[in-house]
Amino acid sequence: MAIKTPLEYINSLKDGRVVYYGGELVKDITKHPFLRINVDWLAMDYVLENDPKYKKLILDKNEDGETVPFILSAQRSKQDLLRLRDLVKLMARVCYGKPSGAKFVGKDGLNAVTVVSQRVDKKYGTSYVKNVEAYRKYLQTNDLSLALAMTDVKGDRGLRPSKQQPHQDYYVHIVKETKDGIIVRGAKTHISQSPACNEMIVVPCRAMKEDDKDYAVSFGVPCNAKGITFISTECEAREPGNYFDYPISGSSFINDALVVFDDVFIPNERIFLKKEWELAGDIAYMFGNFHRLSAETYKAAELEMVTGAAILMAEYNGIDKASHVQEKLSWLIQYAETVEVLGRAACEHCVTEPDSNLVYPNPMIANICKLHFADNWHQATKYVQDIAGGIVVTAPSFKDWSNPKERPLMEKYFGGKAGVPTEDRLKMVKLIKDETSPYEDVLTIHAEGSLAAQKMSILGLADFERYKSAAKRAARIKDIKDPIYRELPEFPSKTYKY
Amino acid sequence: MAIKTPLEYINSLKDGRVVYYGGELVKDITKHPFLRINVDWLAMDYVLENDPKYKKLILDKNEDGETVPFILSAQRSKQDLLRLRDLVKLMARVCYGKPSGAKFVGKDGLNAVTVVSQRVDKKYGTSYVKNVEAYRKYLQTNDLSLALAMTDVKGDRGLRPSKQQPHQDYYVHIVKETKDGIIVRGAKTHISQSPACNEMIVVPCRAMKEDDKDYAVSFGVPCNAKGITFISTECEAREPGNYFDYPISGSSFINDALVVFDDVFIPNERIFLKKEWELAGDIAYMFGNFHRLSAETYKAAELEMVTGAAILMAEYNGIDKASHVQEKLSWLIQYAETVEVLGRAACEHCVTEPDSNLVYPNPMIANICKLHFADNWHQATKYVQDIAGGIVVTAPSFKDWSNPKERPLMEKYFGGKAGVPTEDRLKMVKLIKDETSPYEDVLTIHAEGSLAAQKMSILGLADFERYKSAAKRAARIKDIKDPIYRELPEFPSKTYKY
Amino acid sequence: MAIKTPLEYINSLKDGRVVYYGGELVKDITKHPFLRINVDWLAMDYVLENDPKYKKLILDKNEDGETVPFILSAQRSKQDLLRLRDLVKLMARVCYGKPSGAKFVGKDGLNAVTVVSQRVDKKYGTSYVKNVEAYRKYLQTNDLSLALAMTDVKGDRGLRPSKQQPHQDYYVHIVKETKDGIIVRGAKTHISQSPACNEMIVVPCRAMKEDDKDYAVSFGVPCNAKGITFISTECEAREPGNYFDYPISGSSFINDALVVFDDVFIPNERIFLKKEWELAGDIAYMFGNFHRLSAETYKAAELEMVTGAAILMAEYNGIDKASHVQEKLSWLIQYAETVEVLGRAACEHCVTEPDSNLVYPNPMIANICKLHFADNWHQATKYVQDIAGGIVVTAPSFKDWSNPKERPLMEKYFGGKAGVPTEDRLKMVKLIKDETSPYEDVLTIHAEGSLAAQKMSILGLADFERYKSAAKRAARIKDIKDPIYRELPEFPSKTYKY
Amino acid sequence: MAIKTPLEYINSLKDGRVVYYGGELVKDITKHPFLRINVDWLAMDYVLENDPKYKKLILDKNEDGETVPFILSAQRSKQDLLRLRDLVKLMARVCYGKPSGAKFVGKDGLNAVTVVSQRVDKKYGTSYVKNVEAYRKYLQTNDLSLALAMTDVKGDRGLRPSKQQPHQDYYVHIVKETKDGIIVRGAKTHISQSPACNEMIVVPCRAMKEDDKDYAVSFGVPCNAKGITFISTECEAREPGNYFDYPISGSSFINDALVVFDDVFIPNERIFLKKEWELAGDIAYMFGNFHRLSAETYKAAELEMVTGAAILMAEYNGIDKASHVQEKLSWLIQYAETVEVLGRAACEHCVTEPDSNLVYPNPMIANICKLHFADNWHQATKYVQDIAGGIVVTAPSFKDWSNPKERPLMEKYFGGKAGVPTEDRLKMVKLIKDETSPYEDVLTIHAEGSLAAQKMSILGLADFERYKSAAKRAARIKDIKDPIYRELPEFPSKTYKY
Repeated sequence: MAIKTPLEYINSLKDGRVVYYGGELVKDITKHPFLRINVDWLAMDYVLENDPKYKKLILDKNEDGETVPFILSAQRSKQDLLRLRDLVKLMARVCYGKPSGAKFVGKDGLNAVTVVSQRVDKKYGTSYVKNVEAYRKYLQTNDLSLALAMTDVKGDRGLRPSKQQPHQDYYVHIVKETKDGIIVRGAKTHISQSPACNEMIVVPCRAMKEDDKDYAVSFGVPCNAKGITFISTECEAREPGNYFDYPISGSSFINDALVVFDDVFIPNERIFLKKEWELAGDIAYMFGNFHRLSAETYKAAELEMVTGAAILMAEYNGIDKASHVQEKLSWLIQYAETVEVLGRAACEHCVTEPDSNLVYPNPMIANICKLHFADNWHQATKYVQDIAGGIVVTAPSFKDWSNPKERPLMEKYFGGKAGVPTEDRLKMVKLIKDETSPYEDVLTIHAEGSLAAQKMSILGLADFERYKSAAKRAARIKDIKDPIYRELPEFPSKTYKY
Repeated sequence: MAIKTPLEYINSLKDGRVVYYGGELVKDITKHPFLRINVDWLAMDYVLENDPKYKKLILDKNEDGETVPFILSAQRSKQDLLRLRDLVKLMARVCYGKPSGAKFVGKDGLNAVTVVSQRVDKKYGTSYVKNVEAYRKYLQTNDLSLALAMTDVKGDRGLRPSKQQPHQDYYVHIVKETKDGIIVRGAKTHISQSPACNEMIVVPCRAMKEDDKDYAVSFGVPCNAKGITFISTECEAREPGNYFDYPISGSSFINDALVVFDDVFIPNERIFLKKEWELAGDIAYMFGNFHRLSAETYKAAELEMVTGAAILMAEYNGIDKASHVQEKLSWLIQYAETVEVLGRAACEHCVTEPDSNLVYPNPMIANICKLHFADNWHQATKYVQDIAGGIVVTAPSFKDWSNPKERPLMEKYFGGKAGVPTEDRLKMVKLIKDETSPYEDVLTIHAEGSLAAQKMSILGLADFERYKSAAKRAARIKDIKDPIYRELPEFPSKTYKY
Repeated sequence: MAIKTPLEYINSLKDGRVVYYGGELVKDITKHPFLRINVDWLAMDYVLENDPKYKKLILDKNEDGETVPFILSAQRSKQDLLRLRDLVKLMARVCYGKPSGAKFVGKDGLNAVTVVSQRVDKKYGTSYVKNVEAYRKYLQTNDLSLALAMTDVKGDRGLRPSKQQPHQDYYVHIVKETKDGIIVRGAKTHISQSPACNEMIVVPCRAMKEDDKDYAVSFGVPCNAKGITFISTECEAREPGNYFDYPISGSSFINDALVVFDDVFIPNERIFLKKEWELAGDIAYMFGNFHRLSAETYKAAELEMVTGAAILMAEYNGIDKASHVQEKLSWLIQYAETVEVLGRAACEHCVTEPDSNLVYPNPMIANICKLHFADNWHQATKYVQDIAGGIVVTAPSFKDWSNPKERPLMEKYFGGKAGVPTEDRLKMVKLIKDETSPYEDVLTIHAEGSLAAQKMSILGLADFERYKSAAKRAARIKDIKDPIYRELPEFPSKTYKY
Repeated sequence: MAIKTPLEYINSLKDGRVVYYGGELVKDITKHPFLRINVDWLAMDYVLENDPKYKKLILDKNEDGETVPFILSAQRSKQDLLRLRDLVKLMARVCYGKPSGAKFVGKDGLNAVTVVSQRVDKKYGTSYVKNVEAYRKYLQTNDLSLALAMTDVKGDRGLRPSKQQPHQDYYVHIVKETKDGIIVRGAKTHISQSPACNEMIVVPCRAMKEDDKDYAVSFGVPCNAKGITFISTECEAREPGNYFDYPISGSSFINDALVVFDDVFIPNERIFLKKEWELAGDIAYMFGNFHRLSAETYKAAELEMVTGAAILMAEYNGIDKASHVQEKLSWLIQYAETVEVLGRAACEHCVTEPDSNLVYPNPMIANICKLHFADNWHQATKYVQDIAGGIVVTAPSFKDWSNPKERPLMEKYFGGKAGVPTEDRLKMVKLIKDETSPYEDVLTIHAEGSLAAQKMSILGLADFERYKSAAKRAARIKDIKDPIYRELPEFPSKTYKY
């Protein structure tokens, strides 16, 4: 057992998994022109693990002295969280804003069940902690890629899992229990990079009521398990290898697949929650806590790139000194830096799980940060597109650029400020087109929970008494409950007279 | 001469024009799988002209009693402008938000030179009005499709046309004059549907100074003229005929081509401006006046569709009663209706060109309306994507839907509220993806001038004295210049005592 | 009977009414230093009525040939509504943005019961139309000032009128019926200028259910009726006659009083609704329809002034050419003009009440316009304050300006751009302070209904089928219900082949 | 020498200073009904210094073992800055959002000259550090209150100090040099609490050019120095001691006075900059660095109060469960918490002045934080006013509440949700009115520099190369200059083949 090479990882995917892409069942995903983009993106994890330069950041020794990926460890301190940030930031910068996903989302699922399994065991006398730790060891020592499957397909969003019509499979649930394990059915959607992972950790996506208890289920499962079918999304890039037109989407194909569980068997030792419905929501929520942080980290890197594209286009177009352009650039910079500062602060002010040596990112700060980047994204794309100009969507393609008859015309007429190579200008507008796609929009607002979800979380986490006490004291209303405000000296003071 | 049939129009395009698409020189654009989407979209003009139902709206008699398309007439009254609106609205509704373009942009160029040629003739004793009217007659009686070429490729946006480096061809200009005409060189960009039009009207894109006088040029030219090369944009739709994945971009391919003028000869009778640099800006500005109105009209139709998509997705997802969803729907409705009301008001309160029987849309209202729709578009797409959910970008493609193995899984798991066909839900998310593309973003903010341009126009058009007088009078400052405010009775009044 | 003079109006207020101001019962409001500001503001109506210049706009003949104020007539055409707009605009411009209120709000109450009494009579066989018309004649021929009392004090906003605790008087209601009339109890709040009006028209402020039927009541009543008590708001201006520091609030004191009805008798002939609870909401809604228009009209005038103040401060400070200032001015101009255009369009596209010769402003457009001005007001004040600078709140007062020792220092040091009198600059900053007060903020967002109310109205008024049909047709979903979209020709067309 | 008592501080103000208020020269400001509000607010510093509970936070030993206020120490570490934050936060919470100002602004001036005097001495061989440290010692050991005078009156903002017309005194400048010192003339505006401080530290407000060198001047001066005149602003509260109507403005009168320097003599040992124009801007900028942090700290406390007022009004009105209200509350919470987190992060990631043991808050983060709170303030007041309702500005005054005839009516009819004392509801609306005044608006956007200034600072501080390199690398453009991005491994990787 050891850290895998990229090729070992790639070969591990030839395991009989059932993956559809573009209407076809794909025999070997590592040979499929588009799925390979996804595979190569994940392989980047293994490239970095094997790069001596990053060893110290990426690798760790486990208690048995084995070299394992740090990313799958439990988080026990502010330093751990900040290291995780550095790691995600590195991967995001390497991969043009999208951190290579071999363990990127999966780790947050693992973190979530690590924290919550303690709560469940404490409350119910179960022994899920043991299962989680065994699973962690299995993943780490085999250096496995791990996806996270949370979002159910949901059907009618106005109804709870057990109330759905016309069928009850809109949320993954237990259809049968045996001595050795459970049988689950349902489908999870937007399961990033799952078709190219070794394992998948499955968690509930919402709080449950007692009626829904069959839906309160969490487990680990190999991606080639019998009964699992992946239906891929279509790669946004049209041509593999065309980085001129598709610099982002041709490199980092996330493949948020639909994962169907058609009566899949899960052995007892891989189960992390089984009908303890009162804590289903805790897992979803704790995954959110961790994953928001991951997202905030990579978004900070992505926003560096977006901001840079705006700056460069302003320069290429000769408008970088225009006042309205400078105002937009300033806005983009503060947007990027705010996400960086808030995301980092969520680690620096992390929360310790009671009676444990586990920490998690500060939920209030992490929610605010996520809301901030998601709520402002469309403003950012507007500014970038505004600065870049109509050419973002009217520039001809790389095929035209490659035609010796067209190229001189394009060279001559798509030039910008004197001295800027036309090719650079065209590459930059293509980057902007690729980066302001609906895919990026939707990823930004919906991944890690919708805007409405962040807003409700912020409300739920707030210290209402502190705010109310501040207002009451100022208004000279008597009953002040918050200790900070209750004990402040009177103002204006009566301690002196004149 | 008469109204053309769609086929007559289509056949008229087999005229030796030089059109590149995807790196290839296209021999017959009417047979090219993607360019044909553009052709069929333009052909819709001719379909409607030949539909008895719309005769009254679309057709007119000219002074010789010939039946001609109304859309190419000069605008002489509020009623004319409102009829134009009805016509554009109809075409936009028919073509899913994008009015078929056989004459759509061209007409606004024709309107611009119609108004401004009067000014030029008056100032310089030239006879461009005659040229414009002869051209109009030619276009109308032959029922020709007409593109408008305004935006030069521009090079360094911080420099004027004659100051560009390393070459002086970043703006179309006169390189030679002969007894019979002029030779022009340069390139125009984002020239919507030009590769599939019969004629093209070329106008300057900005105000000029005396140094730039060779760039002050306007003319009409056939699209197959010697020396003209079109380099097409790539169609956003990937597959012709796939309306499931590409309901908009598979139907309305605008093709905002690059048009290169490599020493093209323009005969004297087709020239509408030749070095009268002081009025170059007037044409650009007057084109804007008319074209903003056209855009406001089709945007109102497009926003009906966008709003409808949001409403339907809310219903399909079972969240239409959620308060935050209702707030977003309400916002979308006011957005759509505001664009409708302001665009209509720009016609209802149109401006008469002095010493003429010509009118044009109210420039202040039209600028405000354009700014309103452009400045809020990204907010709108955010709301629509927010309501629709991640499925907008993760739903598999029509190929998957067509595979009998995948379809039952998709049918089952992509269902929404009970009773809603899964196919409808998938079609709607695809519509939203197609409609919130960077193409739509950039078209919305950059066509008809950038946001900054609208803002400066509004400032330029404003009645500063009226505002200042209102404030001075309230502040009891004496020198009030605006007649409305200067003559108001004093308040509080001294006409009575008690 | 005839048009009153200002003094006749003023003297008519010495009628024993019960008005409190600043903790004191005021014997004669026309002699009270602050209430007089309110009175003089209302008197301006009578000044204008007696000014020959405005006769044609302001006065009308009734069916008996008597000269009466047009403002109290029923609205029967688009022209009537546009005349009303002109009238309100004039009054608003005269009075620094706040239309003199002698009949300003009252007229909209009268308009509301004019429309709805027809509905009630039709549904219930009552004869309220007769009462309304008799009341109108009484008001017009006596040229009486008229307030409108709608907003109840409401108690717990989460409970309906009849469910309030600890008492049931949070909404005005009928406590007793007699042969001759009814006895009403409760209190109305924010009843603008009511302490200085002759009459008051009382209407419900919300829809009712059957339980609430005692609260479904509307009537006219003299302001000195037994049992009515007015508790005034405090004038925002601190010193009567100081127009340097209080140019707005020292001239236009609206006095949004609390009006307490302590078992007030209303004779039958003054009742316009009595327990017909199903139509209570119609009156509230119809008042909104009319009053939003009035507000939109005066806001357009007020925004001229606000915009002018920003322009002048930019000039006085020497920053009018700064790009960020120009962007803000441009924004303010579009804000002002959008309110003007939308408000006018609500008249131009008014709605006819079925089976009647009555019209009312287009509710969709009027709601959008109100939402637009209210939702953007704080942005506007931010911009104005931003341009004006800290001096807005740190400039010393008129008392300092009047001290011969301080004045030279102030003259010297509060100067702006050379050539601008320091006094003008100081007056302008005081105007801005006065105009960006919480009073103006709250008036803007809460009068004519809250932001949330507008949003819900827009949703309620929208043509959902049209939007949905547009989206369905584009997505190629079959069941299209809206007639416009259902009958459009197919696109792409199958009428030709090639 | 020792820590002063409040009374010692108060008595120290009877020193012949020249203070105008409301047009009158005030003989003893400690006896003036309104100026006393300012004095008592400052006295609160001394109350806290003498409160054993806060000793550890507030007091320090200097190198001579004397007990001195920590707030006037030089900042040498992150811990120092965080302690300063705690101190300012305490004072802000005690004083209803406005930290008692005896040294609050002054300390930031002292911090600024502490850092910059090192730079000046290094560059010019001057000995200002010695002067600064002597002044610090004087201030600390005498526990003096200290104002900061930065903003000149400025005249025409488009012209530099030495180019002003019609006089050259719009910026404070040296008019004469003697052996012992300098004579200065000019006026500073918005000099918070200066009329009630012992000393005043004067610094330039902008960068200078060589022509302006007489304006490049910084010094310390006693507030009763010959030639200094204070012209007070008017207190926003109308009645001293009325905390019902004026809970904020009746307690924390900041008095942003105009300070006129009419040929004031400054001895050499109190001079911190004298014509070294190249570093004038550094002082202004460094003051901004420190003072933004102070502002961010107190704003976080103020926003607790504002948020609390919104929460309480929602509860009092019975609308706290309404979805649109919850969305607004959530927004207010994230606003308050973001300011807290960003302000704290500016300390946690502070910058060390090269070759010194001094630190200052992270300028990028501090600018972002300031921009965030200032740019969103009007949105916040809109939300608070929206939730609270029209009563914010129509509630009668405390005088009415005190009248036994009116009080029962007010008690009954201004009640909200059952169980909430009417008095509490009225106090809360008054708090909201007081807190959403133009004074608060302008203070928020203009203190610590305008919005435009923050935006330009952010642009100036940004690491452009990092952003550009991120974009270039993604677009596959070669010349990557930023070391982080230049050294990243290639992606997709070529380290493996399959």
